Amino acid sequence: MMRILILNGPNLNLLGTREPEIYGSETLADIDVYCLKIGKELGADMSSAQSNHEGELVDLIQKAIGECDGIIINAGAYTHTSVAIHDALRAFPGKVIELHISNPHQRESFRHKSFIAPLADAVILGLGTEGYELAIKAMIDSLKTI
Amino acid sequence: MMRILILNGPNLNLLGTREPEIYGSETLADIDVYCLKIGKELGADMSSAQSNHEGELVDLIQKAIGECDGIIINAGAYTHTSVAIHDALRAFPGKVIELHISNPHQRESFRHKSFIAPLADAVILGLGTEGYELAIKAMIDSLKTI
Amino acid sequence: MMRILILNGPNLNLLGTREPEIYGSETLADIDVYCLKIGKELGADMSSAQSNHEGELVDLIQKAIGECDGIIINAGAYTHTSVAIHDALRAFPGKVIELHISNPHQRESFRHKSFIAPLADAVILGLGTEGYELAIKAMIDSLKTI
Amino acid sequence: MMRILILNGPNLNLLGTREPEIYGSETLADIDVYCLKIGKELGADMSSAQSNHEGELVDLIQKAIGECDGIIINAGAYTHTSVAIHDALRAFPGKVIELHISNPHQRESFRHKSFIAPLADAVILGLGTEGYELAIKAMIDSLKTI
Amino acid sequence: MMRILILNGPNLNLLGTREPEIYGSETLADIDVYCLKIGKELGADMSSAQSNHEGELVDLIQKAIGECDGIIINAGAYTHTSVAIHDALRAFPGKVIELHISNPHQRESFRHKSFIAPLADAVILGLGTEGYELAIKAMIDSLKTI
Amino acid sequence: MMRILILNGPNLNLLGTREPEIYGSETLADIDVYCLKIGKELGADMSSAQSNHEGELVDLIQKAIGECDGIIINAGAYTHTSVAIHDALRAFPGKVIELHISNPHQRESFRHKSFIAPLADAVILGLGTEGYELAIKAMIDSLKTI
Amino acid sequence: MMRILILNGPNLNLLGTREPEIYGSETLADIDVYCLKIGKELGADMSSAQSNHEGELVDLIQKAIGECDGIIINAGAYTHTSVAIHDALRAFPGKVIELHISNPHQRESFRHKSFIAPLADAVILGLGTEGYELAIKAMIDSLKTI
Amino acid sequence: MMRILILNGPNLNLLGTREPEIYGSETLADIDVYCLKIGKELGADMSSAQSNHEGELVDLIQKAIGECDGIIINAGAYTHTSVAIHDALRAFPGKVIELHISNPHQRESFRHKSFIAPLADAVILGLGTEGYELAIKAMIDSLKTI
Amino acid sequence: MMRILILNGPNLNLLGTREPEIYGSETLADIDVYCLKIGKELGADMSSAQSNHEGELVDLIQKAIGECDGIIINAGAYTHTSVAIHDALRAFPGKVIELHISNPHQRESFRHKSFIAPLADAVILGLGTEGYELAIKAMIDSLKTI
Amino acid sequence: MMRILILNGPNLNLLGTREPEIYGSETLADIDVYCLKIGKELGADMSSAQSNHEGELVDLIQKAIGECDGIIINAGAYTHTSVAIHDALRAFPGKVIELHISNPHQRESFRHKSFIAPLADAVILGLGTEGYELAIKAMIDSLKTI
Amino acid sequence: MMRILILNGPNLNLLGTREPEIYGSETLADIDVYCLKIGKELGADMSSAQSNHEGELVDLIQKAIGECDGIIINAGAYTHTSVAIHDALRAFPGKVIELHISNPHQRESFRHKSFIAPLADAVILGLGTEGYELAIKAMIDSLKTI
Amino acid sequence: MMRILILNGPNLNLLGTREPEIYGSETLADIDVYCLKIGKELGADMSSAQSNHEGELVDLIQKAIGECDGIIINAGAYTHTSVAIHDALRAFPGKVIELHISNPHQRESFRHKSFIAPLADAVILGLGTEGYELAIKAMIDSLKTI
Repeated sequence: MMRILILNGPNLNLLGTREPEIYGSETLADIDVYCLKIGKELGADMSSAQSNHEGELVDLIQKAIGECDGIIINAGAYTHTSVAIHDALRAFPGKVIELHISNPHQRESFRHKSFIAPLADAVILGLGTEGYELAIKAMIDSLKTI
Repeated sequence: MMRILILNGPNLNLLGTREPEIYGSETLADIDVYCLKIGKELGADMSSAQSNHEGELVDLIQKAIGECDGIIINAGAYTHTSVAIHDALRAFPGKVIELHISNPHQRESFRHKSFIAPLADAVILGLGTEGYELAIKAMIDSLKTI
Repeated sequence: MMRILILNGPNLNLLGTREPEIYGSETLADIDVYCLKIGKELGADMSSAQSNHEGELVDLIQKAIGECDGIIINAGAYTHTSVAIHDALRAFPGKVIELHISNPHQRESFRHKSFIAPLADAVILGLGTEGYELAIKAMIDSLKTI
Repeated sequence: MMRILILNGPNLNLLGTREPEIYGSETLADIDVYCLKIGKELGADMSSAQSNHEGELVDLIQKAIGECDGIIINAGAYTHTSVAIHDALRAFPGKVIELHISNPHQRESFRHKSFIAPLADAVILGLGTEGYELAIKAMIDSLKTI
Repeated sequence: MMRILILNGPNLNLLGTREPEIYGSETLADIDVYCLKIGKELGADMSSAQSNHEGELVDLIQKAIGECDGIIINAGAYTHTSVAIHDALRAFPGKVIELHISNPHQRESFRHKSFIAPLADAVILGLGTEGYELAIKAMIDSLKTI
Repeated sequence: MMRILILNGPNLNLLGTREPEIYGSETLADIDVYCLKIGKELGADMSSAQSNHEGELVDLIQKAIGECDGIIINAGAYTHTSVAIHDALRAFPGKVIELHISNPHQRESFRHKSFIAPLADAVILGLGTEGYELAIKAMIDSLKTI
Repeated sequence: MMRILILNGPNLNLLGTREPEIYGSETLADIDVYCLKIGKELGADMSSAQSNHEGELVDLIQKAIGECDGIIINAGAYTHTSVAIHDALRAFPGKVIELHISNPHQRESFRHKSFIAPLADAVILGLGTEGYELAIKAMIDSLKTI
Repeated sequence: MMRILILNGPNLNLLGTREPEIYGSETLADIDVYCLKIGKELGADMSSAQSNHEGELVDLIQKAIGECDGIIINAGAYTHTSVAIHDALRAFPGKVIELHISNPHQRESFRHKSFIAPLADAVILGLGTEGYELAIKAMIDSLKTI
Repeated sequence: MMRILILNGPNLNLLGTREPEIYGSETLADIDVYCLKIGKELGADMSSAQSNHEGELVDLIQKAIGECDGIIINAGAYTHTSVAIHDALRAFPGKVIELHISNPHQRESFRHKSFIAPLADAVILGLGTEGYELAIKAMIDSLKTI
Repeated sequence: MMRILILNGPNLNLLGTREPEIYGSETLADIDVYCLKIGKELGADMSSAQSNHEGELVDLIQKAIGECDGIIINAGAYTHTSVAIHDALRAFPGKVIELHISNPHQRESFRHKSFIAPLADAVILGLGTEGYELAIKAMIDSLKTI
Repeated sequence: MMRILILNGPNLNLLGTREPEIYGSETLADIDVYCLKIGKELGADMSSAQSNHEGELVDLIQKAIGECDGIIINAGAYTHTSVAIHDALRAFPGKVIELHISNPHQRESFRHKSFIAPLADAVILGLGTEGYELAIKAMIDSLKTI
Repeated sequence: MMRILILNGPNLNLLGTREPEIYGSETLADIDVYCLKIGKELGADMSSAQSNHEGELVDLIQKAIGECDGIIINAGAYTHTSVAIHDALRAFPGKVIELHISNPHQRESFRHKSFIAPLADAVILGLGTEGYELAIKAMIDSLKTI
């Protein structure tokens, strides 16, 4: 049974509570429940975590080594600044999908650089909270073909 | 009934015939058939086109104005250089999804810049030829919510 | 009798049909008729062409060698990217006026660079579709003084 | 009755006295007389001023607030360096046309940057001293359409 | 009653214990007591926190949403590197004042960039520990005028 | 008795007459009166000046040598371009506080660079016209501690 | 029998008709005849094509896959801008020689960058139209050693 | 008796478990034991710590003030991004040696910049896990000469 | 009889009154007297002027056209920012020597760029106030050889 | 009789002894013999030299003034760094051909810049040691046409 | 028996004679004697050389091919500019350790770039003249493990 | 008796033999004789040297330590590239004057950077071969004032 970790970075715990016109009205808890359900239906063992701490995200990725087959990561602001998360993902032997709810290329130029992308097998941007569903399906398809 | 155009740029007509270990063994014709089938099942009216010519891609996007509700575009090399395609997409009132079969962020730095991304509602990178299926589903979901 | 070519680049065929609040409600056909009339009154032999294809614009400039005394060029998006058009204009022995309907310096920074300007005798920006009239008059004045 | 200010920046008082092969043999006084005449014919109330002082140009623009409907400005060298003139023009509620006698894009690269252009409704470059006539006509046309 | 959070970033807990000739001899505890007193006199409900952890500063800003009307933030070194704190402040609906004890523009060039400044209503630099008093007064004045 | 000069740069004489929603409705004269009053109450000998001329600001700073103990300077647009004012301030032996009514870091990137800041003891940004009051108080406090 | 394609890009059809002091008086037709003759003598099957269209050059390179053993390409202006031609050459399994009649390093800096060079086995610059003869000989030598 | 702190940053807890061909097969625990032994033999009081958290590394450096005479720091990924650790080391009055197991100059260019190096008395790169032994000896030698 | 203008820019009127250890104790008046004497001895008609105003320096250079054979200019801070003075010097038909009392290459990097140097026949840096004497001699020698 | 100098720069004396799969198995002595023979057959007086010393290469180029009609130079690493060799070639009145055995554009980016190219009549890259033969022939052809 | 070459670059022959407070009072001769002794004790055959000439350093590295097992190189100023030494080291099949007596990252920014580092197995900076001892030990350890 | 060394760099031995319209017709030998004579008259002990070798220039500067009181250096092309000469001059305790016969700021941009200038007490550019005379006089004046 495939094991998939959904990892959300800084400020994503605010989802659904602020600027719903941009980020939608679903909370991170809604998304977690939703992902769990989708994963279950598709036969995957889902887990999820969120942290505002760069170091904690590193810890979580390290912990996923040997425990998970794939990580779907929305590293939020750390996407653009964190070499530490980059290095942790480099040590992770499974599949990695980078995800952003909105499309960072439509925002400030400092959001156009991603330290996650060079280590991601795939990248999904701007599909809103529904991007998580697609990422799970893509991850499962991708893991099947190994 | 939703109308979706799949637009492929330069050198994508070579798909399946070269470097299958990178781009898979499916040809562009296979993908077109496949997309047609998926679209049909989901109730969308699909069309597709490929061109190695920047100007022809501009023509095709212009023609899609009023005829299509969404464009899924893999602009290939023109992604990184074409302001003309950027402008044509700006004139297109429907939804736009940018797609790349591989993840350009793992290639040369001149492929990290996209003139399509600032105009794309969503971006899907590195999911192989299966990315087309996800893009169609995402496009249909997205058009439904308007 | 002076011969003047009006050359319009990519997406200018959409004039009058989209974003009239920015680009005015005149179509490119209207402008062509209008330019013809003005040129006629001022004793010039007018011709005009539009293309979304960089190569076609190169072809048209080459064809103008020996056939036209001046080119008024609105190269649209190719203004910012085309060394090929730059080279074709370099081979053109007549007068060149660069024209843009809106003022590119008020738009994205990638529109601040022009490959046409170093080869243009004059540049007219932001005068709307009326800029064509002024450009024709300026071209005729300029050709008279040779 | 429209009121239009012609504002000339540093070293333009030397016009006609130096390098006539580049800048023509008309002096600034000639141009002022010429502009006055054209404006009068077209029903506009013309005034003009020249200064080598950045601060005086700022003063003159401020003074034009409420007194003039449009400014035609050839800011000379300050075009490329003056944020102060930029700010004064930002405070001016009327129309602004930027003008240069020669085409700065054919000169040193430090002349390719303009602090005036982002605030100018239109830009006219390289039409020689005849550019002033076209600028006046364009200004009047533009003011009529408000 | 206005609620104001004083938030201090990395290494500010060392205040008063090192390099007193630069940073003064007041400790962070002294400043906290002092701020509390000033706030009280001016009728504001003060709280304060310090952390060396970027993620904890994000947590604290998030916690202030709904609990505080304004944040006075001296983000220390994270000022120059943290997009995560930038995003947290963007989500905070109250007033934000950025504060630094010394003037970063007199130090290394990597301290001239601030990710806090674009989100700060006001910025106070180089007033020493007395800057906190001015920031509190400015915050209270600013909140009164809403 | 402390002597403090309030020095305002280009276009600040327009304060209160344009864009009051951004810069407030107080005129520079109002601010001068207000500063005089505050200074008087706090026992300082106040003077003030405004100029649109870079050279005049240099003159005024030079004149303040030996006549003033501190300068509060809002150099407006010259903040970003003037090495001459930078050099004059370097020759001034008293205290210097840089002030801006709005926060330049929320405006165009050419306003993020300050030639004043490296020579300013303190910097106050974005506090509106009330920033002048805080600057006077901070200046007086700072002069007392010498 | 080796098959070699000579591919010429934009504006090279003007060879011999303009600026003969720089580019010589030989026309492209002369060169084609000349290359054919040389190739024949050396036992190679020669073909040649010229286009002003980036897309057509891509088409021609793709067509050469399986039909030609080597391409000698003078991509003209597209040398400096075309990722699409770069990608087509990447897909071409034979030998590639980049050729320019003049030496681009003696011209504008935007001609110093080549998107062809990283994919070219060899580069020949500045040998005039005689460079084609040397390129053919070098290509044949090179193909023999495979 | 000299007190030396060995401080390891993000992902160094994975040492010996991943990519042993690059980083060797020794675990961080092995290194800690080894360092303790060497330090003991040389008469130094050794301690060590590892963290994936930037803030925790700041905390640990602050704690070392007054408790340790020297710090040997392998800041891992934070080497290239952390101004906060830079500032903490600046506050540390003892000796600092920067250490990396591999040579970052043979990796991506973003690893060529070090925020630690300007504050390090010495730097040791690429000596593998044996670098720790040399760093301890060098630290002890260096502390003796004070 | 040769006529030479000594032109000094902003803040040079402070010479001798501030930082004598750097700039010497001679005042600008001393230098003027000294230059007059040297020029007289060498048979030159000397004049001198100083201004803190960029525009006034432009005025003075313009006035020197036809009145002076050479200008020795120490443009102070405007050296690094003034295109207007650059343009005025370009219009001046005589000899130009750029002079600085100290060596700007030993100061901040924004002083390494000179807009005067490309128009100066010679440049003399760092010879203190004695540089004026050498510049006069060099100017006279240079004028003799015309 | 034409006199041609073959000049080889640093590390080219190692040819044939190291990395033969890249640089071929021919030694520099082999190449010298080979060039001598080819030159002789074509009626040219050949000489050759190699040095690892930048200054010696300058000496050799200077010595060639008046003694040689053309220089074929493979400046090795000095290609990318030597202004001194650039200046020596500028003083050389004969023809210059730049040659590299491999194609530097396929190597590190610091090898993409050439100080030789702007002074070379022609450039030949990537043709292996056979490039020397082509260069000699091209040099002789070129010298004949003078 | 291992053979190790100590190679010192420009100005290192001045060691001990100038600025002893920075570089120590040991002369290069002292260091050579010292290194010889250490190497002897550890069973290595030591040689050393110093040159102010880039080309001579290239010669010496080339000579070490086949004669030495490792090079410890302090290339001094050539570290930051020499591609020729870089290329020579690339041809050297043994181990390479880069060494600097002081830490270049604490000096001017042009010293932060090293052309040696990408080819060095290890780098030792800032350990003073004692760094040579550590480098020899590290070299010997490293050669033993091959 | 003051001892002054005149040091000339690469290609300056060609003076007077090439491009006399730019560099004059005096040879380096003429200049040496001339400098000797001037120095003698002014009571200085003159020596001079020229080399095309960077390392030799370093040797000569080192030799001047203790033997000369001042160096007048025209480092030619090494001005723009040599950190080694920079370092040698840093070790030289006497006065240094940088000299160039023409004004490098009127040539290519790579000649605008000088590694000599930050270590030169004075800089003299563009005074032709007469600059040597002025430099000797300035050097002697400067040495007298120590």
